[in-house]
Amino acid sequence: MDKVFKWDIFEIALSGNTAGNPFTDYTIRGVFKGEQEEIETEGFYDGDGIYKVRFMPSYEGVYRYFITGNYSDAGTVTGEFEVFPAKSGNHGPVKVSNTYHFTYADSTPYYSVGTTCYVWELQSDDRIKETLESLSESGFNKIRFCIFPKHYDYNFNEPRSYPYEGTPMDNSVLTEDNFWGYTDNPKENNEWDFTRFNPGHFRHIENCIKKLGDIGIEADLIIMHPYDRWGFSKMSAYEDDLYINYIVARFAAYHNVWWSLANEYDILDKTIDDWERYAQIICTKDPYGHLRSIHNCIPFYDYTRPWVTHCSIQRQDIYKTAECTNEWRGKYKKPVVIDEMAYEGDIPHFWGNITAEEMVRRFWECAMRGGYPGHGETYMNKDNVLWWSHGGKFHGESWKRVKFLHKIMCETPGLGLTSDAKMDYMGVTAVPQDDKERENKTYFIYYYSFMQPSCKIFHIDDETEYEAEVIDTWNMTVEKAGTFKGKFKINLPGRPYMAVRLKKRRNYQ
Amino acid sequence: MDKVFKWDIFEIALSGNTAGNPFTDYTIRGVFKGEQEEIETEGFYDGDGIYKVRFMPSYEGVYRYFITGNYSDAGTVTGEFEVFPAKSGNHGPVKVSNTYHFTYADSTPYYSVGTTCYVWELQSDDRIKETLESLSESGFNKIRFCIFPKHYDYNFNEPRSYPYEGTPMDNSVLTEDNFWGYTDNPKENNEWDFTRFNPGHFRHIENCIKKLGDIGIEADLIIMHPYDRWGFSKMSAYEDDLYINYIVARFAAYHNVWWSLANEYDILDKTIDDWERYAQIICTKDPYGHLRSIHNCIPFYDYTRPWVTHCSIQRQDIYKTAECTNEWRGKYKKPVVIDEMAYEGDIPHFWGNITAEEMVRRFWECAMRGGYPGHGETYMNKDNVLWWSHGGKFHGESWKRVKFLHKIMCETPGLGLTSDAKMDYMGVTAVPQDDKERENKTYFIYYYSFMQPSCKIFHIDDETEYEAEVIDTWNMTVEKAGTFKGKFKINLPGRPYMAVRLKKRRNYQ
Repeated sequence: MDKVFKWDIFEIALSGNTAGNPFTDYTIRGVFKGEQEEIETEGFYDGDGIYKVRFMPSYEGVYRYFITGNYSDAGTVTGEFEVFPAKSGNHGPVKVSNTYHFTYADSTPYYSVGTTCYVWELQSDDRIKETLESLSESGFNKIRFCIFPKHYDYNFNEPRSYPYEGTPMDNSVLTEDNFWGYTDNPKENNEWDFTRFNPGHFRHIENCIKKLGDIGIEADLIIMHPYDRWGFSKMSAYEDDLYINYIVARFAAYHNVWWSLANEYDILDKTIDDWERYAQIICTKDPYGHLRSIHNCIPFYDYTRPWVTHCSIQRQDIYKTAECTNEWRGKYKKPVVIDEMAYEGDIPHFWGNITAEEMVRRFWECAMRGGYPGHGETYMNKDNVLWWSHGGKFHGESWKRVKFLHKIMCETPGLGLTSDAKMDYMGVTAVPQDDKERENKTYFIYYYSFMQPSCKIFHIDDETEYEAEVIDTWNMTVEKAGTFKGKFKINLPGRPYMAVRLKKRRNYQ
Repeated sequence: MDKVFKWDIFEIALSGNTAGNPFTDYTIRGVFKGEQEEIETEGFYDGDGIYKVRFMPSYEGVYRYFITGNYSDAGTVTGEFEVFPAKSGNHGPVKVSNTYHFTYADSTPYYSVGTTCYVWELQSDDRIKETLESLSESGFNKIRFCIFPKHYDYNFNEPRSYPYEGTPMDNSVLTEDNFWGYTDNPKENNEWDFTRFNPGHFRHIENCIKKLGDIGIEADLIIMHPYDRWGFSKMSAYEDDLYINYIVARFAAYHNVWWSLANEYDILDKTIDDWERYAQIICTKDPYGHLRSIHNCIPFYDYTRPWVTHCSIQRQDIYKTAECTNEWRGKYKKPVVIDEMAYEGDIPHFWGNITAEEMVRRFWECAMRGGYPGHGETYMNKDNVLWWSHGGKFHGESWKRVKFLHKIMCETPGLGLTSDAKMDYMGVTAVPQDDKERENKTYFIYYYSFMQPSCKIFHIDDETEYEAEVIDTWNMTVEKAGTFKGKFKINLPGRPYMAVRLKKRRNYQ
């Protein structure tokens, strides 16, 4: 009997019709029955006469499958396989938990600390390898990237492959001054058959998704984006829907997939009805309910829409971003992921030149309010390889501090932090989201951001003993400051980016 | 004939009644007639049987005066004096000009860069001398301070004098834990006659106002404040009005006086009607129309009130302050003075521990939007002498950068800066307030704040030649970058706190 691990992929590949257009003319679907679930999923044409159906089991034990469709005249194909416990490190897909937070399917808390590399996977094999090595070394556990290639400053090169059959425009006509001119009428310059996918393009992306999964990183897939000279952002509704069906059929079985309907949805030439229709397709066709959101340029999408599982936010103000986490949590009652709080770097673009210190400060401001921050790096360099677009190596300093923050986040009692609202006007006091932990006053992190107090006075109550620690968020140290009760003073070094953590002393008997 | 310089004080001192309460039972007033003005002003009792009337002439030439009142039975006292041109450095009182800005009476632009030392003038002679020396060395041209003594952290000592006759509470009863307990019922602990002023207290303050005037510094007098164990903040309406009349009669003739009705008006036990009444007294009794405002703790006073000449703002948000200058200018259509944007220092109080870099950044953010920033310094030190409260020496780094900013502000063509609103979402682009200068695109300062671009691209138009300068606001350097036309690039050092200034090249023939 075939074997598969829980939250891995069981795939059936079958030969089928090649006449006409196999991407649109034929169907294939599977039903997967185990003792604890029965999942129906659509398959896809993978080229060369091969149709595939994929399934991600969420339970152990024996499953039976039934493959049907007009892809061939084989009739219903059936079989069995056994699902074994998940491989070490695979905690299953991430779900929303405790309203504002996330856990993996196996209930392990997932504290998201993301980065953005828009088209890292469309670079050369060497670059991709380098990016994966950088990611492994970092603490990031989510990466945002695009399925379609990207046409934008520092990135006017060609992708390694295209999603469709056809011919891209001749990029030798691009000059320093005219490259934006080619974004308006892509149909004049490119020739694609938007009904015929290039399976190799998607197969390669799957391979990248898998490699991310292997190192514990969620793949936040950007389905549409406006930075486009090829016309992929200007397809018809029929073509868009075809595309979304195709990627859901291909990618949904990967445990680490998140769906991001768009980067900067508001500068794409689509209507709210379009976005809602895409969301409907995903909700209907993804049997695993992977996380879904949509990312703004300026106005937020209506994150109260039921299909939106979490906010995926780009800052709306260059000065105040992560500090708005409370407000957004309050408004949307969903996890707040701030995927773009500006990027560490030194490019001229106003969104791409904050310091490492400021980036780390924003990470902490966001995380201490129970939000989930995102990183990006945009340092100029002679090869025009910018992490934010291409991946490669890190050149900054903020990425090094992310693993440390993530460790602190993981030490939260219960699941997730929130901030003590009554203290908001003076900064952020992080407390556990868990009601009981909060009532019992077990855990406090006072984050001092750009402020540089030389001491702080605390007075939680008169009875409880607290173990105090001084955290240097920049230098990544945690120093014990002693055990205290009642009103007490903690000395601090008088420099920015410090925090004090108080943990209720447990009485071990 | 007596002589006086324009915008200096002509004072008449006359003996009068001492029976009863000279502060309340008698009046003295003067009328001063020159060719270009006729001013009526109230005098005051200065103790020891002496009544005084003061006058500040705004024009040169011969004046005649007429002193009347029931202070004695001398009848109308008259005389003449001649007003000579103002002494060098005395530009007269500051007025609002060009809606959002200030000039001195002689039309010299006044670009306000202030500091706060709440009770510097109530310290020892040595400390006062030290403060004046520090101020002389600095670039500050305004200082906020209180007429009443101040009871607040780091400042529980006694003032050098009290404003009233009577006996203050015994401060030996103050301990580290109880000092706030003495603010609630001051009448139980202090004995004052709120109808009998201590002229020495006010005479000393006048001396300090004069010394500030001599070094070109405006005295932004805080008339009321809540930090009080003596009861000066809890007088009756009658007593308040008596006090306001008294200080207006004494201080209004000093050219460098500004009236600040309160520090943190909203935490004083007064009503809006009270504030409006005080304002009415000042408007009626101050014949020179010195600048008037009122400073908030949390909610702003209604700065649209006609008597308010300018906003005097304390930040309402710890993260975003100076960046709101545009919004406040737009809302109130008056000069925006941000007197408290947090203080450079390292005390535990959340409002008193920003870095020097952050303070200077806020100064520039405010100034580049055509607002007027204020400084304060709160470094812990073993003598508990904090600039913000006592004056003394500076211990920080931000004050050193104020003179440099002020020099840049003074180089604005026309009067005052504003920001280019259409660029707001990406930071601040300072342009002249003057319509003609703006239409002619003569002058631009692009301030990059905490951002660290390694270059910037400019393209004002295709024809105009610009002289470009790179300004390092922290290191206080201005470096010529060359002359450019059309689209051009300016290289920057890739660190924060930089600015680029473009000046239209003048065609000298």
